[in-house]
Amino acid sequence: MEVINLLTEVNKITELYTYKKVGFLNGNILSIVQVENRTLDFHVHENSDELFYVIEGSFYLETKKNKTKVNTGEFIIVPKGVKHRPVVTDLTNFLMIELSGTLNKENSGDLYEE
Amino acid sequence: MEVINLLTEVNKITELYTYKKVGFLNGNILSIVQVENRTLDFHVHENSDELFYVIEGSFYLETKKNKTKVNTGEFIIVPKGVKHRPVVTDLTNFLMIELSGTLNKENSGDLYEE
Repeated sequence: MEVINLLTEVNKITELYTYKKVGFLNGNILSIVQVENRTLDFHVHENSDELFYVIEGSFYLETKKNKTKVNTGEFIIVPKGVKHRPVVTDLTNFLMIELSGTLNKENSGDLYEE
Repeated sequence: MEVINLLTEVNKITELYTYKKVGFLNGNILSIVQVENRTLDFHVHENSDELFYVIEGSFYLETKKNKTKVNTGEFIIVPKGVKHRPVVTDLTNFLMIELSGTLNKENSGDLYEE
């Protein structure tokens, strides 16, 4: 069992959009990533809820109906089946949690490797 | 979809050992709790991994082999089947994540209600 310091670990990442796995929990993968100046296309995860936790920074979570700001120390959970996209301007550090097999290059920005 | 600020929400709790549910993620419950001066009995969750995240404070996670300190901004995941107990002295605020149905009055301190 390993202790993970979110801020320390995310600051070790040297490239944007590169997901680092930091845990596995009941079929879910916990990963951390640094993102800047990126808006993903609207997409849906049919089989998994998705948690965005902001370690540092802020972003907007957009659905077709709402645009919600999420700041440092806050999380939001997108239920499966809900079309959404993250909108990131300033450098922001995230913890993501979703079922294993959910993220891929199309819905994660670029450099995700299962 | 609701934005949850962990520190704000946990500081709204007025009683120790009282779990407040703040999210549901792929069958897991996210709950926050304030704990002080409490050592639980060693116990096992046979069906669920369990994540302890320290919002503020620190505690020791003990297994039969190790005693691991977890500080503010850090998490540790106890795999299912691993006997463990949290040891808390100073007031510490937690985010807990485990499968729905895992926590009960015996393994959570006192006041857990599913």
